[in-house]
Amino acid sequence: MALSMRCTVKSVFSFIHKSSSHRRLFKAGKAMGTTILHKGQVFSGIQPTGVPHLGNYLGALESWVALQDEYSVVIYSIVDLHSITQPQDPQMLRDNILDMAASLLACGIDPSRSILFQQSQVSEHAELSWILGCLTSMPRLRHLPQWKMKSKQKNEGSVGLYTYPVLQAADILLYKSTHVPVGEDQIQHLELAQDLARIFNNQYGQFFPEPCALLSGTRKVKSLRDPSSKMSKSDPQKLATVFLTDSPDDIVLKIRRAVTDFTPEVTYEPESRPGVSNLVSMHAAVSGQSVEQVVRLAEGMDTGQYKTVVAEAIVQKLQPIRLEIQRLRADRGHLESLLAKGAERARSLAAPVMTEVRKLLGFY
Amino acid sequence: MALSMRCTVKSVFSFIHKSSSHRRLFKAGKAMGTTILHKGQVFSGIQPTGVPHLGNYLGALESWVALQDEYSVVIYSIVDLHSITQPQDPQMLRDNILDMAASLLACGIDPSRSILFQQSQVSEHAELSWILGCLTSMPRLRHLPQWKMKSKQKNEGSVGLYTYPVLQAADILLYKSTHVPVGEDQIQHLELAQDLARIFNNQYGQFFPEPCALLSGTRKVKSLRDPSSKMSKSDPQKLATVFLTDSPDDIVLKIRRAVTDFTPEVTYEPESRPGVSNLVSMHAAVSGQSVEQVVRLAEGMDTGQYKTVVAEAIVQKLQPIRLEIQRLRADRGHLESLLAKGAERARSLAAPVMTEVRKLLGFY
Repeated sequence: MALSMRCTVKSVFSFIHKSSSHRRLFKAGKAMGTTILHKGQVFSGIQPTGVPHLGNYLGALESWVALQDEYSVVIYSIVDLHSITQPQDPQMLRDNILDMAASLLACGIDPSRSILFQQSQVSEHAELSWILGCLTSMPRLRHLPQWKMKSKQKNEGSVGLYTYPVLQAADILLYKSTHVPVGEDQIQHLELAQDLARIFNNQYGQFFPEPCALLSGTRKVKSLRDPSSKMSKSDPQKLATVFLTDSPDDIVLKIRRAVTDFTPEVTYEPESRPGVSNLVSMHAAVSGQSVEQVVRLAEGMDTGQYKTVVAEAIVQKLQPIRLEIQRLRADRGHLESLLAKGAERARSLAAPVMTEVRKLLGFY
Repeated sequence: MALSMRCTVKSVFSFIHKSSSHRRLFKAGKAMGTTILHKGQVFSGIQPTGVPHLGNYLGALESWVALQDEYSVVIYSIVDLHSITQPQDPQMLRDNILDMAASLLACGIDPSRSILFQQSQVSEHAELSWILGCLTSMPRLRHLPQWKMKSKQKNEGSVGLYTYPVLQAADILLYKSTHVPVGEDQIQHLELAQDLARIFNNQYGQFFPEPCALLSGTRKVKSLRDPSSKMSKSDPQKLATVFLTDSPDDIVLKIRRAVTDFTPEVTYEPESRPGVSNLVSMHAAVSGQSVEQVVRLAEGMDTGQYKTVVAEAIVQKLQPIRLEIQRLRADRGHLESLLAKGAERARSLAAPVMTEVRKLLGFY
């Protein structure tokens, strides 16, 4: 576990469980003219895949929302420069960017406490990426997940796909970020960012903090049709994935059809009973209870009855988000203006860092 | 010759030989309220290696100067983002950038007719490079000269070194350049720029012109100590290379010590007599005469006597350039302000192109 030697790996979900009391403390602190916020800077990015699904929400976005109460500077980027490492239809990409913005806002990303912006609107990301690429050896990238997963055959992908983790490192370091909420599958990419911070600092003097992972990988929502794989936007089975914009009827239908097994009781045994355990785990997450609590609550129910309870809990959780996404989507101008303001704030942090970087390199 | 099928390859040196008459025509044209300038846009870049040597001057810079009379938009960039694909000392890099700027100006690059700027001051270069990298397959870059020459062992270089030709393509396409003065060793890199223009246009509609090469590779100045290799800044033999800032005494010494052979007559036989032929070729170039003219002029001289004539001609040519470099170097503030103005003008051309590119991709 090289990472844990380099910096503390925290679970973001400790924040979520504490979030309501912390929020109270934070407000009390603010009222008293003090602050209990951590000093660090949080950065994370999400690809503009359109409206997120329940797995995105529970696995990452909910923790993004909670982190706003914990850190003084919180920066979230819709990383469109990353999205073009795979072919994109321009009109669909545009829609997906705005849908993602609407979704993040609806989930609780608050532009008065976070900087929410679109990566391609801040030139410094690509600039720093070029510079960091000059400090990255070619073989260093060959075994990283992005390339191994997405380049269909060895060496068949684009330069963008190969160098994607360097741009990710630039995204993080550009804001001198100290904490990065990531899924487990992104840890190797974060390690590259840490390495590049060290390489840069060794060469030009202490400048970038080494960013720490805030692991958010413990909550993995599974496909409703195949609980051995992750819930995914691109799942060909329509009933496999709950989107944040699904209607209550859609949600009820999808949960009712969720693959379980032939044992009627509700238990939490992810290895042997992945289907029903996935329902338990979603239920716990959306209702803010522990797994034990919801299993106790389901005592005496069969899985069919339990599905109704789970569906209801998910509908309850997603209903306000769905309505807010609908409201926000209706006004593209408003979303664009929010993103433009976010980009301006991001630029105001990024520009002085890049000015310093250019000086250190000898460009100025 | 794939290139010549795609667009006309012109020799830049036709411009030089015509330059004085063309300049007169141009001035006359301007006075009469008309113009004889070509409509195209010229772009070229040079790495900030400090003060150029005679090979750089005769092989490229003299033609850069002449092109100012030929094209309505002429853009020359000191490509510092390229220079960091190899390790650089920051202070030396800074000095080299300013020395290169002073040298280009002293050679005749005229900021009122050209846009002279430092690449890293215009963010759009790195931005477009990222985008073009997403359209470039990894294997496409593997056999390009930059990587083959400079990555000491296979795959040992940096990501920057590997993707260097993509940034070069971005440099060119960013200004919708139509003509690019290049040496023969850069033709494969220009072909990548042409390919990327085509790939982009196929995907997003006609947008980038396919840039044509203006070949400037015909004049190759050789090392004075080893006429089988090119004159080079990094030649370990101090007497091998004439720099634009060399004093008359230095030039006389270096030419006097130039390796020739044991035949006393002056002839032009590059294959069998590379040393004396290099002198003839330099002499012709600096005095604006043909090779035949200078050989005739040298009739009756032995190579020792002829070296005095050649040295004198080089001193004559370089003296005003050397003095002007000295003058310009003395005022770093002035150079920095000229580069800042150039960057502003470059940005004013690059920004609208990048805005269009972002729209085409679906970012806006």
